[in-house]
Amino acid sequence: MTVYKIGGNVLDDRQALERFCTEFAALPGEKVLVHGGGKLASRLQSALGQAPVMVEGRRVTDADALQAVTMTYAGWCNKEIVALLQAEGCNAMGLAGCDASVITAMRRPPKTLSDGVTTVDYGFVGDVTPDSVNVPVLKMLLDAGITPVLCAINHDGRGQLLNTNADTVAGSVAAALKAELVCCFELDGVLTDKDDPGSVIPTIDASAFEALKASGEVAGGMIPKIENCLKALRQGACGAVIRNSAGLGIESGTTIKL
Amino acid sequence: MTVYKIGGNVLDDRQALERFCTEFAALPGEKVLVHGGGKLASRLQSALGQAPVMVEGRRVTDADALQAVTMTYAGWCNKEIVALLQAEGCNAMGLAGCDASVITAMRRPPKTLSDGVTTVDYGFVGDVTPDSVNVPVLKMLLDAGITPVLCAINHDGRGQLLNTNADTVAGSVAAALKAELVCCFELDGVLTDKDDPGSVIPTIDASAFEALKASGEVAGGMIPKIENCLKALRQGACGAVIRNSAGLGIESGTTIKL
Repeated sequence: MTVYKIGGNVLDDRQALERFCTEFAALPGEKVLVHGGGKLASRLQSALGQAPVMVEGRRVTDADALQAVTMTYAGWCNKEIVALLQAEGCNAMGLAGCDASVITAMRRPPKTLSDGVTTVDYGFVGDVTPDSVNVPVLKMLLDAGITPVLCAINHDGRGQLLNTNADTVAGSVAAALKAELVCCFELDGVLTDKDDPGSVIPTIDASAFEALKASGEVAGGMIPKIENCLKALRQGACGAVIRNSAGLGIESGTTIKL
Repeated sequence: MTVYKIGGNVLDDRQALERFCTEFAALPGEKVLVHGGGKLASRLQSALGQAPVMVEGRRVTDADALQAVTMTYAGWCNKEIVALLQAEGCNAMGLAGCDASVITAMRRPPKTLSDGVTTVDYGFVGDVTPDSVNVPVLKMLLDAGITPVLCAINHDGRGQLLNTNADTVAGSVAAALKAELVCCFELDGVLTDKDDPGSVIPTIDASAFEALKASGEVAGGMIPKIENCLKALRQGACGAVIRNSAGLGIESGTTIKL
Protein backbone atom coordinates (compact mmCIF):
# COMPACT_ATOMS: atom_id res chain seq x y z
CA MET A 1 0.00 0.00 0.00
CA THR A 2 1.30 3.45 -0.87
CA VAL A 3 0.46 6.95 0.37
CA TYR A 4 1.28 9.70 -2.14
CA LYS A 5 1.52 13.35 -1.23
CA ILE A 6 1.32 16.30 -3.64
CA GLY A 7 1.58 19.97 -2.84
CA GLY A 8 0.86 23.42 -4.14
CA ASN A 9 3.21 23.36 -7.12
CA VAL A 10 1.33 20.50 -8.79
CA LEU A 11 -2.09 21.77 -7.74
CA ASP A 12 -1.35 25.22 -9.10
CA ASP A 13 -0.46 23.96 -12.59
CA ARG A 14 -3.46 22.42 -14.36
CA GLN A 15 -1.28 20.58 -16.89
CA ALA A 16 0.96 19.09 -14.18
CA LEU A 17 -2.13 18.12 -12.16
CA GLU A 18 -3.78 16.40 -15.12
CA ARG A 19 -0.57 14.46 -15.85
CA PHE A 20 -0.24 13.49 -12.20
CA CYS A 21 -3.86 12.27 -12.06
CA THR A 22 -3.46 10.22 -15.25
CA GLU A 23 -0.30 8.57 -13.93
CA PHE A 24 -1.65 8.13 -10.39
CA ALA A 25 -4.84 6.46 -11.71
CA ALA A 26 -2.71 3.96 -13.65
CA LEU A 27 -0.63 2.88 -10.62
CA PRO A 28 -1.40 -0.67 -9.50
CA GLY A 29 -2.21 -1.64 -5.91
CA GLU A 30 -3.97 0.08 -3.05
CA LYS A 31 -3.15 3.76 -2.73
CA VAL A 32 -4.10 6.90 -0.84
CA LEU A 33 -3.51 10.48 -1.98
CA VAL A 34 -2.92 13.39 0.40
CA HIS A 35 -2.80 16.90 -1.01
CA GLY A 36 -1.97 20.41 0.10
CA GLY A 37 -2.87 23.58 -1.75
CA GLY A 38 -1.22 26.38 0.21
CA LYS A 39 -0.50 28.61 -2.77
CA LEU A 40 -4.16 28.63 -3.84
CA ALA A 41 -5.30 29.23 -0.26
CA SER A 42 -3.03 32.26 0.04
CA ARG A 43 -4.36 33.58 -3.27
CA LEU A 44 -7.96 33.17 -2.08
CA GLN A 45 -7.12 34.89 1.20
CA SER A 46 -5.60 37.81 -0.69
CA ALA A 47 -8.59 38.03 -3.05
CA LEU A 48 -10.86 38.20 0.03
CA GLY A 49 -8.79 40.99 1.56
CA GLN A 50 -7.16 38.77 4.19
CA ALA A 51 -3.40 39.01 4.69
CA PRO A 52 -1.96 35.46 4.83
CA VAL A 53 0.31 35.22 7.90
CA MET A 54 2.95 32.48 7.90
CA VAL A 55 5.20 31.86 10.94
CA GLU A 56 8.06 29.36 10.48
CA GLY A 57 6.36 28.02 7.37
CA ARG A 58 2.96 27.41 8.98
CA ARG A 59 -0.18 29.45 8.42
CA VAL A 60 -1.66 31.38 11.35
CA THR A 61 -5.30 30.37 10.98
CA ASP A 62 -7.96 32.66 12.43
CA ALA A 63 -11.69 32.10 11.72
CA ASP A 64 -11.52 33.84 8.32
CA ALA A 65 -8.37 31.98 7.30
CA LEU A 66 -9.95 28.66 8.37
CA GLN A 67 -12.90 29.33 6.09
CA ALA A 68 -10.55 30.20 3.21
CA VAL A 69 -8.34 27.12 3.60
CA THR A 70 -11.35 24.83 4.06
CA MET A 71 -12.94 26.22 0.90
CA THR A 72 -9.66 25.81 -1.01
CA TYR A 73 -8.47 22.40 0.21
CA ALA A 74 -11.71 20.54 0.98
CA GLY A 75 -13.70 22.34 -1.71
CA TRP A 76 -11.90 23.25 -4.90
CA CYS A 77 -8.62 21.27 -4.80
CA ASN A 78 -10.12 18.08 -3.41
CA LYS A 79 -13.06 17.90 -5.81
CA GLU A 80 -10.99 18.95 -8.84
CA ILE A 81 -8.55 16.07 -8.16
CA VAL A 82 -11.34 13.55 -7.51
CA ALA A 83 -13.21 14.50 -10.71
CA LEU A 84 -9.98 14.11 -12.74
CA LEU A 85 -9.19 10.74 -11.15
CA GLN A 86 -12.74 9.50 -11.76
CA ALA A 87 -12.38 10.44 -15.43
CA GLU A 88 -9.25 8.25 -15.53
CA GLY A 89 -11.10 5.26 -14.08
CA CYS A 90 -9.77 5.60 -10.53
CA ASN A 91 -12.64 5.33 -8.03
CA ALA A 92 -11.47 8.24 -5.88
CA MET A 93 -13.33 9.61 -2.84
CA GLY A 94 -12.38 12.99 -1.40
CA LEU A 95 -12.30 13.27 2.37
CA ALA A 96 -11.56 15.83 5.04
CA GLY A 97 -10.69 14.48 8.47
CA CYS A 98 -14.22 15.11 9.75
CA ASP A 99 -15.71 12.78 7.10
CA ALA A 100 -16.50 9.53 8.91
CA SER A 101 -14.01 10.97 11.40
CA VAL A 102 -11.17 9.65 9.28
CA ILE A 103 -8.62 11.91 11.02
CA THR A 104 -9.05 13.60 14.40
CA ALA A 105 -6.49 16.32 15.10
CA MET A 106 -5.42 17.96 18.35
CA ARG A 107 -5.57 21.73 18.41
CA ARG A 108 -2.02 23.06 18.67
CA PRO A 109 -1.37 24.95 21.92
CA PRO A 110 0.51 28.28 21.67
CA LYS A 111 4.05 27.38 20.61
CA THR A 112 7.45 28.80 21.48
CA LEU A 113 9.36 29.48 18.27
CA SER A 114 12.92 28.42 17.42
CA ASP A 115 14.26 31.67 18.92
CA GLY A 116 13.20 30.24 22.31
CA VAL A 117 11.46 33.49 23.24
CA THR A 118 8.54 34.32 20.93
CA THR A 119 5.27 32.49 21.50
CA VAL A 120 2.73 32.18 18.69
CA ASP A 121 -0.88 31.04 18.79
CA TYR A 122 -1.54 29.47 15.39
CA GLY A 123 -5.30 29.61 15.95
CA PHE A 124 -7.40 26.87 14.35
CA VAL A 125 -4.43 24.65 13.58
CA GLY A 126 -4.26 20.98 14.43
CA ASP A 127 -1.52 18.43 14.82
CA VAL A 128 -1.84 14.77 13.91
CA THR A 129 -0.04 11.55 14.77
CA PRO A 130 -0.55 7.99 13.46
CA ASP A 131 -3.04 7.54 16.34
CA SER A 132 -5.19 10.30 14.78
CA VAL A 133 -5.93 8.08 11.79
CA ASN A 134 -9.11 5.99 11.63
CA VAL A 135 -7.56 2.89 10.04
CA PRO A 136 -10.78 0.77 9.94
CA VAL A 137 -12.62 3.39 7.84
CA LEU A 138 -9.69 3.75 5.40
CA LYS A 139 -9.44 -0.06 5.12
CA MET A 140 -13.18 -0.38 4.50
CA LEU A 141 -12.93 2.11 1.63
CA LEU A 142 -9.78 0.51 0.18
CA ASP A 143 -11.38 -2.96 0.41
CA ALA A 144 -14.34 -1.57 -1.57
CA GLY A 145 -11.94 -0.50 -4.34
CA ILE A 146 -12.12 3.17 -3.35
CA THR A 147 -9.04 5.42 -3.38
CA PRO A 148 -9.20 7.94 -0.50
CA VAL A 149 -8.08 11.46 -1.43
CA LEU A 150 -7.38 13.35 1.79
CA CYS A 151 -7.06 17.08 2.18
CA ALA A 152 -5.40 18.47 5.30
CA ILE A 153 -8.53 19.89 6.92
CA ASN A 154 -9.29 17.84 10.00
CA HIS A 155 -11.54 18.17 13.03
CA ASP A 156 -11.20 17.86 16.79
CA GLY A 157 -14.29 15.65 17.19
CA ARG A 158 -16.04 18.43 19.11
CA GLY A 159 -17.28 20.39 16.09
CA GLN A 160 -14.17 22.41 15.30
CA LEU A 161 -12.38 22.15 11.95
CA LEU A 162 -8.59 22.47 12.14
CA ASN A 163 -6.01 23.33 9.49
CA THR A 164 -3.23 20.73 9.43
CA ASN A 165 0.08 20.33 7.64
CA ALA A 166 -0.39 18.04 4.62
CA ASP A 167 3.10 16.47 4.89
CA THR A 168 2.39 15.47 8.49
CA VAL A 169 -1.00 14.05 7.47
CA ALA A 170 0.64 11.98 4.71
CA GLY A 171 3.36 10.72 7.08
CA SER A 172 0.85 9.84 9.80
CA VAL A 173 -1.46 8.02 7.37
CA ALA A 174 1.46 6.06 5.88
CA ALA A 175 2.63 5.10 9.39
CA ALA A 176 -0.87 4.12 10.55
CA LEU A 177 -1.41 1.96 7.44
CA LYS A 178 2.20 0.62 7.55
CA ALA A 179 2.40 1.79 3.95
CA GLU A 180 5.11 3.37 1.83
CA LEU A 181 5.20 7.18 1.83
CA VAL A 182 5.91 8.85 -1.53
CA CYS A 183 6.36 12.63 -1.30
CA CYS A 184 6.00 14.18 -4.75
CA PHE A 185 7.18 17.65 -5.72
CA GLU A 186 8.62 19.54 -8.67
CA LEU A 187 12.21 18.17 -8.48
CA ASP A 188 13.55 14.69 -9.20
CA GLY A 189 14.54 14.05 -5.58
CA VAL A 190 17.01 15.42 -3.04
CA LEU A 191 19.71 17.14 -5.12
CA THR A 192 23.28 17.92 -4.05
CA ASP A 193 23.16 20.86 -6.50
CA LYS A 194 19.71 22.38 -6.84
CA ASP A 195 20.62 23.72 -10.29
CA ASP A 196 21.64 20.25 -11.55
CA PRO A 197 18.63 17.93 -11.95
CA GLY A 198 21.08 15.04 -12.41
CA SER A 199 22.49 15.40 -8.91
CA VAL A 200 19.82 13.26 -7.23
CA ILE A 201 21.08 11.45 -4.12
CA PRO A 202 19.72 7.87 -4.50
CA THR A 203 19.52 7.05 -0.78
CA ILE A 204 19.77 9.06 2.44
CA ASP A 205 19.73 7.47 5.88
CA ALA A 206 19.53 9.26 9.22
CA SER A 207 23.30 9.59 9.67
CA ALA A 208 23.90 10.65 6.05
CA PHE A 209 21.17 13.27 6.59
CA GLU A 210 23.08 14.74 9.55
CA ALA A 211 26.26 14.94 7.44
CA LEU A 212 24.43 16.51 4.47
CA LYS A 213 22.87 19.13 6.77
CA ALA A 214 26.26 19.88 8.38
CA SER A 215 27.95 20.31 4.99
CA GLY A 216 25.11 22.52 3.77
CA GLU A 217 24.43 20.23 0.79
CA VAL A 218 20.89 19.75 2.05
CA ALA A 219 19.23 22.95 3.24
CA GLY A 220 16.03 25.01 3.31
CA GLY A 221 12.73 23.34 2.47
CA MET A 222 14.35 19.92 1.91
CA ILE A 223 15.15 19.55 5.62
CA PRO A 224 11.53 19.31 6.89
CA LYS A 225 10.66 17.00 3.94
CA ILE A 226 13.39 14.53 4.90
CA GLU A 227 12.60 14.88 8.62
CA ASN A 228 8.96 14.09 7.87
CA CYS A 229 9.99 10.92 6.01
CA LEU A 230 12.28 9.81 8.84
CA LYS A 231 9.51 10.42 11.37
CA ALA A 232 7.01 8.39 9.31
CA LEU A 233 9.52 5.51 9.09
CA ARG A 234 10.09 5.61 12.85
CA GLN A 235 6.32 5.57 13.38
CA GLY A 236 5.76 2.53 11.18
CA ALA A 237 5.78 3.48 7.48
CA CYS A 238 7.39 0.64 5.47
CA GLY A 239 9.33 2.97 3.15
CA ALA A 240 9.76 6.60 2.12
CA VAL A 241 10.69 8.28 -1.16
CA ILE A 242 11.02 11.93 -2.21
CA ARG A 243 10.47 12.28 -5.97
CA ASN A 244 9.07 14.20 -8.91
CA SER A 245 5.29 14.25 -9.27
CA ALA A 246 5.80 13.62 -13.00
CA GLY A 247 6.68 10.19 -14.38
CA LEU A 248 5.07 8.27 -11.50
CA GLY A 249 5.23 4.93 -13.30
CA ILE A 250 9.05 5.09 -13.41
CA GLU A 251 11.04 4.30 -10.28
CA SER A 252 13.15 7.33 -9.36
CA GLY A 253 13.84 9.84 -6.60
CA THR A 254 15.60 9.69 -3.26
CA THR A 255 14.88 6.79 -0.92
CA ILE A 256 14.92 7.81 2.75
CA LYS A 257 16.01 5.18 5.28
CA LEU A 258 16.45 5.08 9.03
CA MET B 1 -34.93 5.54 5.25
CA THR B 2 -35.24 9.32 5.06
CA VAL B 3 -33.54 11.96 2.90
CA TYR B 4 -33.51 15.42 4.49
CA LYS B 5 -32.82 18.61 2.58
CA ILE B 6 -31.76 21.95 4.05
CA GLY B 7 -31.07 25.18 2.23
CA GLY B 8 -29.41 28.53 2.52
CA ASN B 9 -31.60 29.93 5.31
CA VAL B 10 -30.48 27.28 7.80
CA LEU B 11 -26.88 27.26 6.57
CA ASP B 12 -26.63 31.01 6.86
CA ASP B 13 -27.69 31.07 10.52
CA ARG B 14 -25.12 29.38 12.78
CA GLN B 15 -27.61 28.96 15.65
CA ALA B 16 -30.26 27.40 13.38
CA LEU B 17 -27.63 25.13 11.84
CA GLU B 18 -26.38 23.95 15.22
CA ARG B 19 -29.95 23.23 16.34
CA PHE B 20 -30.67 21.37 13.11
CA CYS B 21 -27.52 19.26 13.47
CA THR B 22 -28.31 18.38 17.10
CA GLU B 23 -31.84 17.32 16.17
CA PHE B 24 -30.79 15.55 12.96
CA ALA B 25 -28.11 13.55 14.81
CA ALA B 26 -30.74 12.35 17.31
CA LEU B 27 -33.14 11.03 14.64
CA PRO B 28 -33.38 7.24 14.60
CA GLY B 29 -32.99 5.12 11.47
CA GLU B 30 -30.96 5.44 8.30
CA LYS B 31 -30.78 8.95 6.92
CA VAL B 32 -29.12 11.06 4.26
CA LEU B 33 -28.70 14.84 4.31
CA VAL B 34 -28.59 17.00 1.18
CA HIS B 35 -27.72 20.68 1.52
CA GLY B 36 -27.64 23.81 -0.57
CA GLY B 37 -25.87 27.02 0.34
CA GLY B 38 -26.81 29.48 -2.39
CA LYS B 39 -26.80 32.57 -0.19
CA LEU B 40 -23.23 31.92 0.98
CA ALA B 41 -22.11 31.18 -2.58
CA SER B 42 -23.52 34.49 -3.80
CA ARG B 43 -21.77 36.28 -0.97
CA LEU B 44 -18.44 34.63 -1.84
CA GLN B 45 -18.93 35.51 -5.50
CA SER B 46 -19.56 39.15 -4.58
CA ALA B 47 -16.51 39.24 -2.27
CA LEU B 48 -14.41 37.93 -5.18
CA GLY B 49 -15.74 40.62 -7.51
CA GLN B 50 -17.99 38.25 -9.45
CA ALA B 51 -21.58 39.30 -10.15
CA PRO B 52 -23.90 36.37 -9.35
CA VAL B 53 -26.26 35.86 -12.30
CA MET B 54 -29.53 34.02 -11.64
CA VAL B 55 -31.98 33.18 -14.46
CA GLU B 56 -35.37 31.75 -13.44
CA GLY B 57 -33.97 30.96 -9.99
CA ARG B 58 -30.91 29.05 -11.23
CA ARG B 59 -27.31 30.27 -11.16
CA VAL B 60 -25.51 30.83 -14.45
CA THR B 61 -22.24 29.04 -13.67
CA ASP B 62 -19.13 30.06 -15.60
CA ALA B 63 -15.68 28.77 -14.61
CA ASP B 64 -15.23 31.38 -11.85
CA ALA B 65 -18.73 30.78 -10.48
CA LEU B 66 -18.12 27.01 -10.51
CA GLN B 67 -15.01 27.49 -8.39
CA ALA B 68 -16.94 29.73 -5.97
CA VAL B 69 -19.89 27.34 -5.57
CA THR B 70 -17.61 24.31 -5.23
CA MET B 71 -15.59 26.09 -2.53
CA THR B 72 -18.79 27.11 -0.72
CA TYR B 73 -20.88 23.93 -0.97
CA ALA B 74 -18.27 21.12 -1.07
CA GLY B 75 -15.77 23.03 1.07
CA TRP B 76 -17.16 25.24 3.80
CA CYS B 77 -20.85 24.26 4.16
CA ASN B 78 -20.29 20.52 3.78
CA LYS B 79 -17.41 20.28 6.24
CA GLU B 80 -19.00 22.63 8.77
CA ILE B 81 -22.13 20.43 8.85
CA VAL B 82 -20.13 17.19 9.04
CA ALA B 83 -17.96 18.47 11.91
CA LEU B 84 -21.10 19.55 13.84
CA LEU B 85 -22.81 16.18 13.25
CA GLN B 86 -19.69 14.29 14.32
CA ALA B 87 -19.65 16.30 17.55
CA GLU B 88 -23.25 15.12 18.15
CA GLY B 89 -22.30 11.47 17.69
CA CYS B 90 -23.63 11.13 14.13
CA ASN B 91 -21.02 9.42 11.93
CA ALA B 92 -21.47 11.80 8.99
CA MET B 93 -19.44 11.71 5.77
CA GLY B 94 -19.51 14.67 3.39
CA LEU B 95 -19.67 13.87 -0.31
CA ALA B 96 -19.80 15.68 -3.62
CA GLY B 97 -21.13 13.70 -6.57
CA CYS B 98 -17.61 12.97 -7.83
CA ASP B 99 -16.69 11.20 -4.58
CA ALA B 100 -16.85 7.47 -5.35
CA SER B 101 -18.97 8.76 -8.25
CA VAL B 102 -21.97 8.89 -5.95
CA ILE B 103 -23.91 11.15 -8.36
CA THR B 104 -23.17 11.62 -12.05
CA ALA B 105 -24.95 14.61 -13.60
CA MET B 106 -25.67 15.47 -17.23
CA ARG B 107 -24.54 18.91 -18.33
CA ARG B 108 -27.61 20.99 -19.10
CA PRO B 109 -27.87 21.99 -22.78
CA PRO B 110 -28.80 25.64 -23.56
CA LYS B 111 -32.40 26.02 -22.42
CA THR B 112 -35.33 27.97 -23.80
CA LEU B 113 -36.89 30.01 -20.99
CA SER B 114 -40.55 30.21 -20.01
CA ASP B 115 -41.06 33.13 -22.44
CA GLY B 116 -40.53 30.58 -25.23
CA VAL B 117 -38.04 32.86 -26.98
CA THR B 118 -34.91 33.51 -24.88
CA THR B 119 -32.26 30.80 -24.79
CA VAL B 120 -29.81 30.64 -21.89
CA ASP B 121 -26.63 28.62 -21.51
CA TYR B 122 -26.28 27.97 -17.79
CA GLY B 123 -22.63 26.94 -18.22
CA PHE B 124 -21.28 24.33 -15.82
CA VAL B 125 -24.70 23.27 -14.58
CA GLY B 126 -25.84 19.67 -14.36
CA ASP B 127 -29.18 17.94 -14.12
CA VAL B 128 -29.80 14.74 -12.21
CA THR B 129 -32.42 11.99 -12.17
CA PRO B 130 -32.80 8.95 -9.91
CA ASP B 131 -30.62 7.06 -12.44
CA SER B 132 -27.77 9.49 -11.63
CA VAL B 133 -27.53 8.11 -8.11
CA ASN B 134 -25.01 5.38 -7.24
CA VAL B 135 -27.25 3.38 -4.90
CA PRO B 136 -24.70 0.61 -4.06
CA VAL B 137 -22.17 3.14 -2.73
CA LEU B 138 -24.80 4.92 -0.61
CA LYS B 139 -26.04 1.55 0.73
CA MET B 140 -22.48 0.46 1.55
CA LEU B 141 -21.97 3.63 3.60
CA LEU B 142 -25.37 3.39 5.31
CA ASP B 143 -24.74 -0.30 6.13
CA ALA B 144 -21.46 0.77 7.75
CA GLY B 145 -23.39 3.17 10.01
CA ILE B 146 -22.27 6.23 8.04
CA THR B 147 -24.66 9.12 7.30
CA PRO B 148 -23.94 10.58 3.84
CA VAL B 149 -24.06 14.40 3.68
CA LEU B 150 -24.37 15.41 0.04
CA CYS B 151 -23.70 18.83 -1.42
CA ALA B 152 -25.07 19.65 -4.85
CA ILE B 153 -21.73 19.69 -6.68
CA ASN B 154 -21.66 16.73 -9.03
CA HIS B 155 -19.52 15.57 -11.94
CA ASP B 156 -20.07 14.32 -15.47
CA GLY B 157 -17.68 11.37 -15.12
CA ARG B 158 -15.34 12.91 -17.67
CA GLY B 159 -13.52 15.24 -15.29
CA GLN B 160 -15.96 18.15 -15.22
CA LEU B 161 -17.62 19.34 -12.00
CA LEU B 162 -21.20 20.58 -12.42
CA ASN B 163 -23.36 22.80 -10.23
CA THR B 164 -26.72 21.15 -9.55
CA ASN B 165 -29.95 22.15 -7.84
CA ALA B 166 -29.98 20.77 -4.28
CA ASP B 167 -33.76 20.17 -4.23
CA THR B 168 -33.48 18.04 -7.37
CA VAL B 169 -30.55 16.12 -5.87
CA ALA B 170 -32.56 15.42 -2.70
CA GLY B 171 -35.61 14.31 -4.71
CA SER B 172 -33.52 12.06 -6.96
CA VAL B 173 -31.68 10.47 -4.04
CA ALA B 174 -34.98 9.84 -2.18
CA ALA B 175 -36.47 8.27 -5.31
CA ALA B 176 -33.40 6.11 -6.00
CA LEU B 177 -33.34 4.87 -2.39
CA LYS B 178 -37.17 4.55 -2.25
CA ALA B 179 -36.91 6.71 0.85
CA GLU B 180 -39.04 9.48 2.33
CA LEU B 181 -38.12 13.01 1.25
CA VAL B 182 -38.22 15.69 3.96
CA CYS B 183 -37.66 19.23 2.65
CA CYS B 184 -36.79 21.54 5.54
CA PHE B 185 -36.97 25.31 5.43
CA GLU B 186 -37.73 28.30 7.66
CA LEU B 187 -41.56 27.93 7.72
CA ASP B 188 -43.74 25.28 9.34
CA GLY B 189 -45.00 23.92 6.03
CA VAL B 190 -47.12 25.10 3.10
CA LEU B 191 -49.19 28.00 4.49
CA THR B 192 -52.45 29.36 3.12
CA ASP B 193 -51.48 32.73 4.62
CA LYS B 194 -47.74 33.31 4.66
CA ASP B 195 -48.11 35.76 7.55
CA ASP B 196 -49.97 33.21 9.70
CA PRO B 197 -47.68 30.38 10.86
CA GLY B 198 -50.77 28.49 12.03
CA SER B 199 -52.19 28.20 8.50
CA VAL B 200 -50.24 25.04 7.61
CA ILE B 201 -52.05 22.82 5.11
CA PRO B 202 -51.67 19.29 6.53
CA THR B 203 -51.84 17.42 3.21
CA ILE B 204 -51.67 18.41 -0.45
CA ASP B 205 -52.18 15.97 -3.30
CA ALA B 206 -51.63 16.61 -7.00
CA SER B 207 -55.20 17.77 -7.67
CA ALA B 208 -55.37 19.95 -4.54
CA PHE B 209 -52.07 21.48 -5.67
CA GLU B 210 -53.64 22.52 -9.01
CA ALA B 211 -56.57 24.12 -7.17
CA LEU B 212 -54.27 25.93 -4.69
CA LYS B 213 -52.18 27.28 -7.57
CA ALA B 214 -55.31 28.41 -9.46
CA SER B 215 -56.68 30.22 -6.38
CA GLY B 216 -53.30 31.85 -5.74
CA GLU B 217 -53.16 30.42 -2.22
CA VAL B 218 -49.92 28.68 -3.15
CA ALA B 219 -47.52 30.84 -5.12
CA GLY B 220 -43.90 31.88 -5.65
CA GLY B 221 -41.12 29.71 -4.26
CA MET B 222 -43.57 27.15 -2.82
CA ILE B 223 -44.57 25.96 -6.29
CA PRO B 224 -41.20 24.43 -7.30
CA LYS B 225 -40.85 22.91 -3.79
CA ILE B 226 -44.18 21.08 -4.12
CA GLU B 227 -43.46 20.14 -7.75
CA ASN B 228 -40.13 18.67 -6.65
CA CYS B 229 -41.89 16.54 -4.01
CA LEU B 230 -44.51 15.31 -6.51
CA LYS B 231 -41.76 14.43 -8.99
CA ALA B 232 -39.82 12.48 -6.34
CA LEU B 233 -43.00 10.56 -5.42
CA ARG B 234 -43.67 9.73 -9.09
CA GLN B 235 -40.05 8.56 -9.42
CA GLY B 236 -40.24 6.22 -6.42
CA ALA B 237 -39.87 8.15 -3.15
CA CYS B 238 -42.08 6.54 -0.49
CA GLY B 239 -43.25 9.85 0.99
CA ALA B 240 -42.66 13.59 0.95
CA VAL B 241 -42.99 16.31 3.59
CA ILE B 242 -42.30 20.07 3.55
CA ARG B 243 -41.54 21.32 7.05
CA ASN B 244 -39.58 23.54 9.38
CA SER B 245 -35.91 22.71 9.86
CA ALA B 246 -36.43 23.31 13.59
CA GLY B 247 -38.13 20.78 15.86
CA LEU B 248 -37.18 17.76 13.71
CA GLY B 249 -38.15 15.24 16.39
CA ILE B 250 -41.78 16.42 16.30
CA GLU B 251 -44.03 15.34 13.43
CA SER B 252 -45.31 18.41 11.60
CA GLY B 253 -45.40 20.13 8.22
CA THR B 254 -47.27 19.51 5.00
CA THR B 255 -47.43 15.99 3.60
CA ILE B 256 -47.35 15.89 -0.20
CA LYS B 257 -49.18 13.03 -1.91
CA LEU B 258 -49.77 11.99 -5.50
